[in-house]
Amino acid sequence: MKTKDRILLESLKLFNRRGERNVSTNHIAAALDISPGNLYYHFRNKNEIVYQLFLQYEQQVRGFMTVPQERDITFQDKVNYLEDILNSMWDFRFLHQDLHHLLQDDDRLRIAYREFSSRTVADGRKILLSMAESGVLRANAEQIDALILNIWVMVVSWSSFLQSISIQNNEGGTLRKGMLKRAIYQIIALEEPFLCESVQALLPELKKHYLDGASTDPLALFPSILDDAQLS
Amino acid sequence: MKTKDRILLESLKLFNRRGERNVSTNHIAAALDISPGNLYYHFRNKNEIVYQLFLQYEQQVRGFMTVPQERDITFQDKVNYLEDILNSMWDFRFLHQDLHHLLQDDDRLRIAYREFSSRTVADGRKILLSMAESGVLRANAEQIDALILNIWVMVVSWSSFLQSISIQNNEGGTLRKGMLKRAIYQIIALEEPFLCESVQALLPELKKHYLDGASTDPLALFPSILDDAQLS
Repeated sequence: MKTKDRILLESLKLFNRRGERNVSTNHIAAALDISPGNLYYHFRNKNEIVYQLFLQYEQQVRGFMTVPQERDITFQDKVNYLEDILNSMWDFRFLHQDLHHLLQDDDRLRIAYREFSSRTVADGRKILLSMAESGVLRANAEQIDALILNIWVMVVSWSSFLQSISIQNNEGGTLRKGMLKRAIYQIIALEEPFLCESVQALLPELKKHYLDGASTDPLALFPSILDDAQLS
Repeated sequence: MKTKDRILLESLKLFNRRGERNVSTNHIAAALDISPGNLYYHFRNKNEIVYQLFLQYEQQVRGFMTVPQERDITFQDKVNYLEDILNSMWDFRFLHQDLHHLLQDDDRLRIAYREFSSRTVADGRKILLSMAESGVLRANAEQIDALILNIWVMVVSWSSFLQSISIQNNEGGTLRKGMLKRAIYQIIALEEPFLCESVQALLPELKKHYLDGASTDPLALFPSILDDAQLS
């Protein structure tokens, strides 16, 4: 593997584990056993590494957000889109966990992120529209507009929401993939009232899967006050 | 007004305008024309000011999240809760715009925020349950659990979502109250399929109000690429 790719891979690993803010280019060089000078030969600063990782993430998401051309779209397709997005978010989880900070530090990333959001919402709307055409979704254009925005905000906010209620933190790295993918349960619940009967029949099984053995009770998400004893 | 209260008021104004991260205790003292020593007499550091402002915000929200005791709850009550919450979020908008950073810096705030979230979700669920009892909402317990969590994530994430797509920024302070309150449109859309017919009839007018003259098209939210010319 080329040094440039090794740097990206190691950076991603460290950013996901400790949070981007807590990882310096020196940490990255040390982890790879290369000199800081060698790292700077490939990337002029940490922002450049973050930007290149963002492009990889964007490329992944763009790759699977396409409507099948030769057959009707199914609800399983929709679930697959969500699976793919949440898997990518897991792979690049440092991005959404401190997005505000990353965007504030880098104009180029801010513009790229906005374009990425805009394109993904547009692609998502096409998917919902084609689900409406094929009869899987019973919603008018206005309902689809509201729905896609609700889904998108839920997708991009779920990980920082979990973080804000201390389900995860950069130190302990307690975010489990199952907790991240519980966002899919919430999104299925969003869409449920609009889905046709034949799809509704499949939902109990699916929802059970994405609840990941957890309770539906939203309060069960909040770590108990008892946990705080360990903090002090 | 006591100096302590003047410090809190001025801090809130500056944090909302410029972002908490860009405002130092020296900035606050200078704006009030008091010495840094005088400020430190009242607050031992900036975290303490942020924490006291959070307590004010929490107090406000706790004040109005109660179910009416002597009559049935109505859909208008529900809209009022959302109005009140979004108004409080506007008053203390710096909190949700960089929550991750604030929570990471202060264990005490992190614990208080988690308790606040947990209590507000519990109160919100009581409200939805009592709407179901009075027949305004037709949803079972599982649907209510999913719904309250979706509503809560939308409420607390909307302002940072707008920020991430450059609708607002700390420099220009371009967040308008109308854009923040558009969250209510999104939440009405979330609840719509579960509402009884008599309430459904009221929704077109309400939704028009919270769209704030904007398009339903989610892409209209994304500033055009042309705006970027002004960034560089």
